[in-house]
Amino acid sequence: MELTDLEVARRLADAAREVILPHFRNTAMAAENKLDGGFDPVTIADRDAETAMRMLLEELRPQDAILGEEHGHKKGTSGRTWVLDPIDGTRGFISGTPTWGVLIALSDAKGPILGVIDQPYTGERFEGTGAHAQLVSPHGTRPLSTRKDTLLADAILFTTFPEVGTSGDRAGFEKVRDQVKLTRYGMDCYAYGLVAVGTVDLVIEAGLNSYDIQAPIAVIEAAGGIVTDWDGGPAHEGGRALAAANPELHAAALELLRGA
Amino acid sequence: MELTDLEVARRLADAAREVILPHFRNTAMAAENKLDGGFDPVTIADRDAETAMRMLLEELRPQDAILGEEHGHKKGTSGRTWVLDPIDGTRGFISGTPTWGVLIALSDAKGPILGVIDQPYTGERFEGTGAHAQLVSPHGTRPLSTRKDTLLADAILFTTFPEVGTSGDRAGFEKVRDQVKLTRYGMDCYAYGLVAVGTVDLVIEAGLNSYDIQAPIAVIEAAGGIVTDWDGGPAHEGGRALAAANPELHAAALELLRGA
Repeated sequence: MELTDLEVARRLADAAREVILPHFRNTAMAAENKLDGGFDPVTIADRDAETAMRMLLEELRPQDAILGEEHGHKKGTSGRTWVLDPIDGTRGFISGTPTWGVLIALSDAKGPILGVIDQPYTGERFEGTGAHAQLVSPHGTRPLSTRKDTLLADAILFTTFPEVGTSGDRAGFEKVRDQVKLTRYGMDCYAYGLVAVGTVDLVIEAGLNSYDIQAPIAVIEAAGGIVTDWDGGPAHEGGRALAAANPELHAAALELLRGA
Repeated sequence: MELTDLEVARRLADAAREVILPHFRNTAMAAENKLDGGFDPVTIADRDAETAMRMLLEELRPQDAILGEEHGHKKGTSGRTWVLDPIDGTRGFISGTPTWGVLIALSDAKGPILGVIDQPYTGERFEGTGAHAQLVSPHGTRPLSTRKDTLLADAILFTTFPEVGTSGDRAGFEKVRDQVKLTRYGMDCYAYGLVAVGTVDLVIEAGLNSYDIQAPIAVIEAAGGIVTDWDGGPAHEGGRALAAANPELHAAALELLRGA
């Protein structure tokens, strides 16, 4: 029986986990490579994980195109594209934090229709496609659903680093930061997963590539949230992204970001 | 047979995990309590976890003093004090991030002699006492050992939020930030664990309480690192803390922080 797209995405995530985890916090290998002047563990893990996912796609979805961070674009004939970021959050990975992740999306001409944010170290997997939105973790499986009633003044906002991007990007971010209850940093793609869980209300980032944002878009939309660029248009080509738990909050943040 | 101090600390951490985890990411309960105007889940979990640990200490170590974040000081007769922070990183907890933790330390008149940084959600436990320094996790058990050869220009620096503390605290932090390779935010007590793992080189914080820093001191020192205040004196009473992976790095950072 042919695998569903979600089952294919899970196979890809499983393969990436297996390749990446032996390199994570491998302090002996990191020191050795450094002395040899060779590639660092995160570069090796990044490259090899994408290769493993591409090999699976050649077998399971030969007609689909592939866009990956490490190995570029492969054309397809189906009109569908798998978009892969084998390690989102390489600086977090190098630092040993548990919140880097593997991003897997499937897109058609209009944008992402399926996304997986996989967390190899914590064993969590955030999945979203159509009406399916769930978190599978060592603590059990739960549906993903964004927070529906948060006002801007009560919102929890995340971004990866306080510089955000250009000085204009930073100024826009800070306008929202000044209005919310709590701002936190440093979670990489994990922050998007928490919007879907319902414990974070806003994520604002800039300077993104399409493979950074397509999986988060699919997961958050399946969980009831909204992701756009800072002008309210589609965010799946990358650039500036605003992820919000609900439409009212999205509108309030967009009002502050527009023209930044 | 009487339990060792490390075994007692593990019992406390187990008890805290059991009390706290049902409250973590419990979005239904959070919304309900908010409507009722009652305590939020993190307050309940914080208070109840400390109560559970204190009850165990009354039974297992009745002569020892207890200092806890939630329920204050209990005098002892042994000259030893258990220092408890049931949830370090309450803002991270509220946001659903996995890097808040339970801090348990045992101190004598000179400072902490044993520390546990427990991570209930990821299942990791950083332990340090004397020559014992290990990380127990779902991925296995490994010895903890700080990075011995990092220069300031190659160092990875963490703090919880970019404001750090007062404007003077922030200025001192930024002097170091401007010299290191990579600065990251948002990991709460987890960052101290990563110094012990050997993937982070420096943690700089200010405005700490004694229960925030005593367990990290014991874990990092057992793993070969150094923790002092910003003048090179003991940090276990709280205030400003500098944790470093090795003595040379500690001296280089201290040079920049002195007089801040």
